[in-house]
Amino acid sequence: MSSISKSKYNSDRLILVCNDDGIFSPGIRALAEVAKEFGEVAVIAPDRQQSAVGHAITVSDPLRVTPFQINSRMEGQAVNGTPADCVKLGHGNLMKRKPDLVLSGINHGSNAGINILYSGTVSAATEGTILGYPSIAVSCTEFSDSADLSGSQEATRRAIRYVLEQGLPAGITLNVNAPAGPLKGLRWAKQANSRYVEEFEGRVDPRNKPYFWITGRLEILDKGDDLDLNLLKKGYATITPIQYDLTAHIFYRNQGKELE
Amino acid sequence: MSSISKSKYNSDRLILVCNDDGIFSPGIRALAEVAKEFGEVAVIAPDRQQSAVGHAITVSDPLRVTPFQINSRMEGQAVNGTPADCVKLGHGNLMKRKPDLVLSGINHGSNAGINILYSGTVSAATEGTILGYPSIAVSCTEFSDSADLSGSQEATRRAIRYVLEQGLPAGITLNVNAPAGPLKGLRWAKQANSRYVEEFEGRVDPRNKPYFWITGRLEILDKGDDLDLNLLKKGYATITPIQYDLTAHIFYRNQGKELE
Repeated sequence: MSSISKSKYNSDRLILVCNDDGIFSPGIRALAEVAKEFGEVAVIAPDRQQSAVGHAITVSDPLRVTPFQINSRMEGQAVNGTPADCVKLGHGNLMKRKPDLVLSGINHGSNAGINILYSGTVSAATEGTILGYPSIAVSCTEFSDSADLSGSQEATRRAIRYVLEQGLPAGITLNVNAPAGPLKGLRWAKQANSRYVEEFEGRVDPRNKPYFWITGRLEILDKGDDLDLNLLKKGYATITPIQYDLTAHIFYRNQGKELE
Repeated sequence: MSSISKSKYNSDRLILVCNDDGIFSPGIRALAEVAKEFGEVAVIAPDRQQSAVGHAITVSDPLRVTPFQINSRMEGQAVNGTPADCVKLGHGNLMKRKPDLVLSGINHGSNAGINILYSGTVSAATEGTILGYPSIAVSCTEFSDSADLSGSQEATRRAIRYVLEQGLPAGITLNVNAPAGPLKGLRWAKQANSRYVEEFEGRVDPRNKPYFWITGRLEILDKGDDLDLNLLKKGYATITPIQYDLTAHIFYRNQGKELE
């Protein structure tokens, strides 16, 4: 439990909770539980699994919203869209007022290194940042639905307390990853340069037609005790500040004005 | 046409051409035409419109690949997946050897400012960069299928020549945007800080059930003659170097080692 007294934090704060694994994921319940320690919670999340959707938004289909209640432990609104759709809808239409904080997760599976780019979990938090809210994405490195999320929850509490006490500069999102089990420590980290190798497995279907599954092994390209993937390997949870300004500023400054 | 002689560039170079509007888009034909001036072309692209998919990859469904030929002008392989899937498949399985260059586009619609994050066109090029290939995304600001893409094509030639002559540092992707019509000039630019406002339009369907369409107006949050969206407004094409390392390095350096 948080060591901060409820009186300090549990004011009339309104917290938007989203994820990419969908409303039935144990991870989003674990995140909503932590969020409740800090304020009122509005869960607005995809109605089904949306992993690896990246920062997709739904422009070609109508979006539907359905109220839900799960086991009297969590209620909210389910959206037939992507994580970024959910945050946009929460911000624009579905909440009684603008949120004070956006949380996304707890994802079942790491969103560190290059996975940050593919992650719907991270994109929901990034969308929160774009819209002007302090936003935190949280993932547990273990895929199993029965993973012990206590360390991820404690890392989330620390990240929330940081944001409430220090604030967060515009344009920056906090991306938290934690191993399953109790928290060993939460380290500030950089996104490890990494990529997938051996990506596709070819098969033949019962009608003799070929198809492919995406698969592969994550390869870490850099060493360093300050990189998210390396710290996770050592059992630490990580907190990586990321930005949605993708400009390569150093490269940019070395160019002229015009390209002929 | 390029002012560079074919003998200088049209060697045994192999160029992967992808997009997010799908294989029937006029934009990908226009891009393949330019690519042929610089080498052999392999078109590997989504079999249908995949706009706003961001950096999604397909992990829950099998991927199918179908050879296609359009009007004797372009042949290639169509994939029932996302732009990033296409580049991964091209790199891993579908090309006779690894490509020397990855091109994505020409998208019908701008991918400048915050649209960079939502863009499947840009994500295909980013995936090329992740896999180690020099990669360029190209978009025309006009949505119409009948847009004059000559300026976008000329901007593409200049970007390709730059890459072939100067090289491109690891981790950097070039994102080109151009107005419809002839090229007024190609300016180096930064991603403009921007966001959508008034995002959802609520409607009621014939069965009296509510639904939403994503809509909205793009708001530019910064001024500056060096920002992509502002330069495009003035009629210039833009070339923005972007990176997939999302770490907010300056913020990171101001933190301690551990967050308690």
